[in-house]
Amino acid sequence: MTQTNRQWVLKSRPEGMPRRDDFELREQPVPAVTDGHFLVRNLYLSCDPTQRGWMERDTYAPAVAIGDVMRAVSAARVVVSKHPGYREGDLVCGAFGWQDYALSDGSGLFPIFKLPSGTAAPTGLSLFGITGLSAYFGMLDIGAPQAGDGVLVSAAAGSTGSIAAQIAKIRGARVVGIAGGARKCQWLTEEIGLAAAIDYRSENVRGRIVELLPKGCDVYFDNVGGDILEAALGRLARHARVVLCGAISTYNDREAATGPRNYVNLILRSATMRGFLVFDYAARIPEAVADLGRWAAEGKLKDQIDVAEGFESAPDALRRLFTGENLGKQIVHVAD
Amino acid sequence: MTQTNRQWVLKSRPEGMPRRDDFELREQPVPAVTDGHFLVRNLYLSCDPTQRGWMERDTYAPAVAIGDVMRAVSAARVVVSKHPGYREGDLVCGAFGWQDYALSDGSGLFPIFKLPSGTAAPTGLSLFGITGLSAYFGMLDIGAPQAGDGVLVSAAAGSTGSIAAQIAKIRGARVVGIAGGARKCQWLTEEIGLAAAIDYRSENVRGRIVELLPKGCDVYFDNVGGDILEAALGRLARHARVVLCGAISTYNDREAATGPRNYVNLILRSATMRGFLVFDYAARIPEAVADLGRWAAEGKLKDQIDVAEGFESAPDALRRLFTGENLGKQIVHVAD
Repeated sequence: MTQTNRQWVLKSRPEGMPRRDDFELREQPVPAVTDGHFLVRNLYLSCDPTQRGWMERDTYAPAVAIGDVMRAVSAARVVVSKHPGYREGDLVCGAFGWQDYALSDGSGLFPIFKLPSGTAAPTGLSLFGITGLSAYFGMLDIGAPQAGDGVLVSAAAGSTGSIAAQIAKIRGARVVGIAGGARKCQWLTEEIGLAAAIDYRSENVRGRIVELLPKGCDVYFDNVGGDILEAALGRLARHARVVLCGAISTYNDREAATGPRNYVNLILRSATMRGFLVFDYAARIPEAVADLGRWAAEGKLKDQIDVAEGFESAPDALRRLFTGENLGKQIVHVAD
Repeated sequence: MTQTNRQWVLKSRPEGMPRRDDFELREQPVPAVTDGHFLVRNLYLSCDPTQRGWMERDTYAPAVAIGDVMRAVSAARVVVSKHPGYREGDLVCGAFGWQDYALSDGSGLFPIFKLPSGTAAPTGLSLFGITGLSAYFGMLDIGAPQAGDGVLVSAAAGSTGSIAAQIAKIRGARVVGIAGGARKCQWLTEEIGLAAAIDYRSENVRGRIVELLPKGCDVYFDNVGGDILEAALGRLARHARVVLCGAISTYNDREAATGPRNYVNLILRSATMRGFLVFDYAARIPEAVADLGRWAAEGKLKDQIDVAEGFESAPDALRRLFTGENLGKQIVHVAD
């Protein structure tokens, strides 16, 4: 193994939007494989909003140290193995980071799991990745939509929101998605068949929620926080469930972040607001993978993937999550 | 029946703190009792923070109309009955309002219930009233403290908080109460035996929570909102439950109310924040009355009552909830 291992390392903690300059491209030799370890070749890198937190500070996971390889989940092929649990050729997902090759002993902050045979590598990061699994557990376990419920989903054209919205639809709910721009809104109604879409860039979100969900929101799946969370809290049905999955509007400027001023509506509507981490549900991943895979095979669930080309594009691809340029799951294609 | 019926009617919607001038004292003849009705003599009036909302706007219940008798729960004696369900001499609780006498057909916005024989009238408003029942259902159903859990309660020397804190203690939790002033804090530790008390007027609440509950709050029972809610959200244990019972710090100035800027901690700690109304649990009131009564009889639950003397004092007694002058349940003694 004499190839080089390209790595994006964290150079500085971001102020505001993550910039390409916050990272540095480094070349290292591909590491030697010692007993009990295996080497993977990254094929696709997953872009996830939670990476913004990892760049800045300790949260549920420690911050990435300055000078360390940027943490990322990826889909990878095992190329050399001296580990009894992994064989050459296995397709695995794990937090292998922004690099061409990674050495692993099978442990780590995030579970490493083998993809079911026949699964395309990108699907391991979208449907079966952090975002798809978050959508599954958040919507079903916390949102728990019933047939006929009014369900509102923000960032509904994003990787988590689009899966969450479709799961609610599978459960028989009336689903309204919020997204930025006409292209995404059209995709929500025409491609994934939501009841309606709200363009937060050009429409009055509060007014449109009243029109589209006149009985209020039984479930609100929140990926964004900020004004849209407040708009949804203003229109809760009795016993509503607010699923706190993310707050992407606040990640680049926590100082300016406001809380929902009308959270007292949770009292007046006897409603629940609950946060979660997908890692809470690690033991139930097989159940989720089975359901999500079946729904996709049956054509009930569209898994939209937005591919950026080339290892060098990783920092720019990550930025797209915050500018809202991506449609569906943003990934980076590194190798075949 | 030739006596007069004194009534406090709502004269104006309050701006900020409710004032005596927002009400007007009126005298009316005591109403005649028609078939299917009964007449009660109010003995004690209950003062509840939720009355501030009723004065201003429609919430879970319609606002009190200008010129109408101020809505209040009270403990009353049936003095005349032409209703098959009530007999002269019965001691009942219901929303009979700020007046000496009230005519009822047994229906109404709030359930009317007869007190168990031997119950003192004030107990019907404290332990078995809105506040005691809110403490019971909020703490047990939403907070669900386990033995050894760290439980934080705000307005812990108030009518709801003091019962909620003691219920958590009965369940074996380590309970820390927050209250304003040395007298209340001393009462919390010496009289009702909480593990510790934090005086929010003179102490750094955030720092004291870290000291007193180093593993974080498994349960936070919130009666106040504002800065204290934010302090508690900053110190949640994993899978914490935040019980939203009230937000008294915001009731007099909703415009200035802020939301908890760090609500994203609900995600990072996989925590739940849930609001409720005691009326959600109407069917389970007998169970609550049995438990609360037994705990009080066994000496495990101290039911602290703060009595204002005389019908005329009702507006001032209500204000005491917002100035924090009351220790325990604020009621008004109207007649024996």
